[in-house]
Amino acid sequence: MQLYQPDDVRSILTKAPFFKACDEAQLDRLSAGAVLCHYPKGKILFLHEQKAEYAYVLNSGWVKLFRETLDGDQAVVDVLPAGHLFGDSAIFNDAVYPCGAEIVERAELVQLSLAAIRTEIQTDNHFALRMMDTMARIRRQQDREIEHRSLQTAPQRIGCFLLRLIEQKQEKGAVTLHLPYDKTLVASRLGMQPETFSRALARLKQETGLTIKGATIEISSLDGLARYSCGACSSEFPCKEK
Amino acid sequence: MQLYQPDDVRSILTKAPFFKACDEAQLDRLSAGAVLCHYPKGKILFLHEQKAEYAYVLNSGWVKLFRETLDGDQAVVDVLPAGHLFGDSAIFNDAVYPCGAEIVERAELVQLSLAAIRTEIQTDNHFALRMMDTMARIRRQQDREIEHRSLQTAPQRIGCFLLRLIEQKQEKGAVTLHLPYDKTLVASRLGMQPETFSRALARLKQETGLTIKGATIEISSLDGLARYSCGACSSEFPCKEK
Repeated sequence: MQLYQPDDVRSILTKAPFFKACDEAQLDRLSAGAVLCHYPKGKILFLHEQKAEYAYVLNSGWVKLFRETLDGDQAVVDVLPAGHLFGDSAIFNDAVYPCGAEIVERAELVQLSLAAIRTEIQTDNHFALRMMDTMARIRRQQDREIEHRSLQTAPQRIGCFLLRLIEQKQEKGAVTLHLPYDKTLVASRLGMQPETFSRALARLKQETGLTIKGATIEISSLDGLARYSCGACSSEFPCKEK
Repeated sequence: MQLYQPDDVRSILTKAPFFKACDEAQLDRLSAGAVLCHYPKGKILFLHEQKAEYAYVLNSGWVKLFRETLDGDQAVVDVLPAGHLFGDSAIFNDAVYPCGAEIVERAELVQLSLAAIRTEIQTDNHFALRMMDTMARIRRQQDREIEHRSLQTAPQRIGCFLLRLIEQKQEKGAVTLHLPYDKTLVASRLGMQPETFSRALARLKQETGLTIKGATIEISSLDGLARYSCGACSSEFPCKEK
């Protein structure tokens, strides 16, 4: 279902960190051709190496970025929460998407034309610099991901994933939290086979005393969980970047 | 040892893919404050989170980008060959380096001031676009790295590493190649503990019939190695990006 609602589009853009610093005229130009979309879980927005025409701003829900191997397995490159701009790097990638995107929790998105974004980059140096800043931030997150996959054990990676969820909520001490999407996807997001994930979760429970009921997780000691996971990371808890 | 040789600096810059499209005036400005450096193996150029003043163009040798965990372990984020620009992303990272850099094989580099690069970005939109293109390329390489660490087995990851070395040499059929740096670093670059690397290498030899003597590797069938490794990747051999 797609609805044309220029006002909503504009207010969503101004909420997204990337577009916050845009001036009025720029927001007018970007909103003009933009489309507000609502999609259910399972909708594929685009596939790896597909010709790219649009970038998206996620206003609610979750989106999975993925790639498929020649043998048909799927690697989850990232799972993005609301506020993210994605699909934009296709501007610099021979106009094809560097990975696929699938809605994993019912989502509201703004679809923006890559041509419109390209025009802003070429004419407004501040816009270009903001885009580079965003790209550099993503690169730092990927550096961390590669670092974690080199040195953290599977239980530490799960602990780190949970700590980053907590940090978003700004809570302290003992904490209750809910997994934002199903466990199979959490496992894929962390690059683990389901059986590795189950074993690692059991180990994490044993080592840090956390308890799990369905999607609800109770952490008795945030410090204990941070001590367990963050020793094998280059950043201390709470980490600066999610 | 540092030598001031503006001519060499300029010729090195024009050889590096990133600076190829610079015009004469731009090369003059960038070369003016640049310094040609020669460093031995083991030299630390900068550390993670250190205040950033310089980016580097590698003309010969190899550079390791790394991070250290709070427990003192080291994760190798990348090992760069000649031709690469690095340290540049600190421009967008609160002026601190997002990882450390160490010379791993005797290297010749050009040291450029980040302030000079920042000025070019702010005044020349084409320069900014090229920088974004480079950043997007690195992001795609990191996507692939994360994909491989999710889905490739350890022997497949070693096979993939070797195939990318061969591709650089444009050879076909049976191939002899030399590891560009020592096995311990190859293991770290692939995110493996030395014992995992040894086991995986033994398995790879068994499965694909390659033989190893010191740093020399003989591959009897390039197709066989590609079949073995690339099934678990989203790209076919030869892959477009190294």
